[in-house]
Amino acid sequence: MEGDPLSALFTPAFVVDVDKAKRNAQRMIERCQKLGVQLRPHMKTHKTLECADIMTGGSQRCIVVSTLAEACFYADHGYDDILYAYSVPFDKVERCAALSERLDLFQILLDHPDALEQLRKRPLKDGRRWHVWLKLDCGNGRAGVLHSEPGALKLAEAIAKTEGVELTGVYAHCGNTYYCTGVEQIQAVAQETTKLTLQFMEKLKAVGITCKSSIGSTPSCSHPVKDMAQLSEVHPGNYVFYDVQQSTIGSCCLEDVAVRVLTRVIGHCPHRNQLLIDCGWAGISLDGAGKLPTGYAVIEGHPNLKLLSMTQEHGRVEPISGQLDYSKYPLGSLLTLIPYHSCATAAMHPVYHVHSKGRLVGKWTPTRGW
Amino acid sequence: MEGDPLSALFTPAFVVDVDKAKRNAQRMIERCQKLGVQLRPHMKTHKTLECADIMTGGSQRCIVVSTLAEACFYADHGYDDILYAYSVPFDKVERCAALSERLDLFQILLDHPDALEQLRKRPLKDGRRWHVWLKLDCGNGRAGVLHSEPGALKLAEAIAKTEGVELTGVYAHCGNTYYCTGVEQIQAVAQETTKLTLQFMEKLKAVGITCKSSIGSTPSCSHPVKDMAQLSEVHPGNYVFYDVQQSTIGSCCLEDVAVRVLTRVIGHCPHRNQLLIDCGWAGISLDGAGKLPTGYAVIEGHPNLKLLSMTQEHGRVEPISGQLDYSKYPLGSLLTLIPYHSCATAAMHPVYHVHSKGRLVGKWTPTRGW
Repeated sequence: MEGDPLSALFTPAFVVDVDKAKRNAQRMIERCQKLGVQLRPHMKTHKTLECADIMTGGSQRCIVVSTLAEACFYADHGYDDILYAYSVPFDKVERCAALSERLDLFQILLDHPDALEQLRKRPLKDGRRWHVWLKLDCGNGRAGVLHSEPGALKLAEAIAKTEGVELTGVYAHCGNTYYCTGVEQIQAVAQETTKLTLQFMEKLKAVGITCKSSIGSTPSCSHPVKDMAQLSEVHPGNYVFYDVQQSTIGSCCLEDVAVRVLTRVIGHCPHRNQLLIDCGWAGISLDGAGKLPTGYAVIEGHPNLKLLSMTQEHGRVEPISGQLDYSKYPLGSLLTLIPYHSCATAAMHPVYHVHSKGRLVGKWTPTRGW
Repeated sequence: MEGDPLSALFTPAFVVDVDKAKRNAQRMIERCQKLGVQLRPHMKTHKTLECADIMTGGSQRCIVVSTLAEACFYADHGYDDILYAYSVPFDKVERCAALSERLDLFQILLDHPDALEQLRKRPLKDGRRWHVWLKLDCGNGRAGVLHSEPGALKLAEAIAKTEGVELTGVYAHCGNTYYCTGVEQIQAVAQETTKLTLQFMEKLKAVGITCKSSIGSTPSCSHPVKDMAQLSEVHPGNYVFYDVQQSTIGSCCLEDVAVRVLTRVIGHCPHRNQLLIDCGWAGISLDGAGKLPTGYAVIEGHPNLKLLSMTQEHGRVEPISGQLDYSKYPLGSLLTLIPYHSCATAAMHPVYHVHSKGRLVGKWTPTRGW
């Protein structure tokens, strides 16, 4: 199939514009270099080796993952300096220990004293130490110990003091940037998260503890604030693909989005003023419901079309206004969907079709599971 | 892992109670035998060999699939008499031809004269004929030519008259049963779909055409009406697993649901009166948003808990009323989610863990893609 045009693909198909992905990756690398902060790219959006190589500039070092399956996948393929940025699940402590004993640098994250107790009960072999980041909640409202709680500092001290355990850093995810619209709002959240993280680092310093710090999210790292230069690392991930959501937030332009779902017209329903396409939720996910005037996706080049609803393998498309001109959409004709949330859409596909300037150049196979 | 309890699984994990799946399958087999109608079970919910064997009673014949990838998967593993019940996509005509030339009985479906033209342009080898079902829309509002349109009869006649093509049957999907609550409403839709299909068969007979007829959906086939005995086949699929949605519709009891997602508590957030679990949308899908008082799933044995929101790998759980008693939910403890829509949840998992009475007995690996 290499060299073939995109129209040679069976649909629905998840396609990656490798030039755009490389450009998005390179821009983030340069942005971080300019800022003077270490980029630790997140793999959770794509979960492939090829894209990891692009994001790490070929170093195969210094990555962050969302599942232990990803950690094992990258470790098995020569990657090292891997941060499993997920409050360490108690069922996976033994697998984390094995990775810690096998890699040069496998790092985990926790936000509760009970998790530290789990590590204490499983000392690593050969004098190795657990490399632990403290997860801090600086307003994101998901995982992490609240930055304002006295327990946060206590837990950091407990990690630092525990034999066989090293406090590697403090990690905050500013996922609350996803509620922003525009650069100003994004930077306000980035500034707040940076400020709270740096204040926490000062508190640590006051009790004699120094370690790394990291914040991240694609919006904040696409438009970093100056103070982020005082952090050790940042850890965005989605930026390599971007998506409609990121363009709505203001992280990128729609032109920066590197991924699409190709679909074909498979039905005409003039009695309902609708088309059917061969992409249902199995091909694009249900993410973005109710958030766009164009429905579950943007239909490229057809601003008057809306992806109204989906079942497993069918999508219903209707015009936002007026009557459909079916002669423009013969059965079998291609439509191109720009995903609302590329992480969710990529997760539905066992293979990604990669192209350069519309010509297929290869396939990427993601890892899955936990 | 065989013989281990479910608690030995890493979470999130999709688990199948094989005894319940077998019971659901057996009941459908008996229901159809009693009614005197051929059961053609749909594979789209699970997409595994093992479950297909259960649903076909070991015959490995007479199945229906939603994707060509499923058709190829089952054909490669000894299955035959496969109906690809999806308005034949023009990009896949050649692959359909190959399956038609290879299997004893590969059947396709169409609802537009242009699709028939595609078949005419690709005659099958060795004197074989395309086996074609006409897709009829009897009120479902998705694919199919409208039963009331004069074009429906014309298209049926055109199929029957086309050289190298055989009109095998008329196929209607009563997915509109999914808007029902209770057996009475389900049976009203089943009756209406059956009536309209049989009326269409009469029209065909009047022009000298006889062929098969089939309707289906899990709700209608779980509570069939007497007139369905006059059909040739029915084609439900979800029933082997069922789910919360089906119990809400009235197709089954919650006790009949054969699948769960196991998850563990990974965070305590007393400042928000929430728990975090290790199942996000990557583990259960976003299907069912806003439809249940308990959120995206039912949390078994904890009727006061709600799966409020999810990101990729995190679920936020809160009490429907009152304050959480965190001592009941220590970090690492297991919770069991009953999926809203088992088709959507199964689609997120590369492997299903199968148990009998809580002891693991094996793994099923679904096929994916298109």
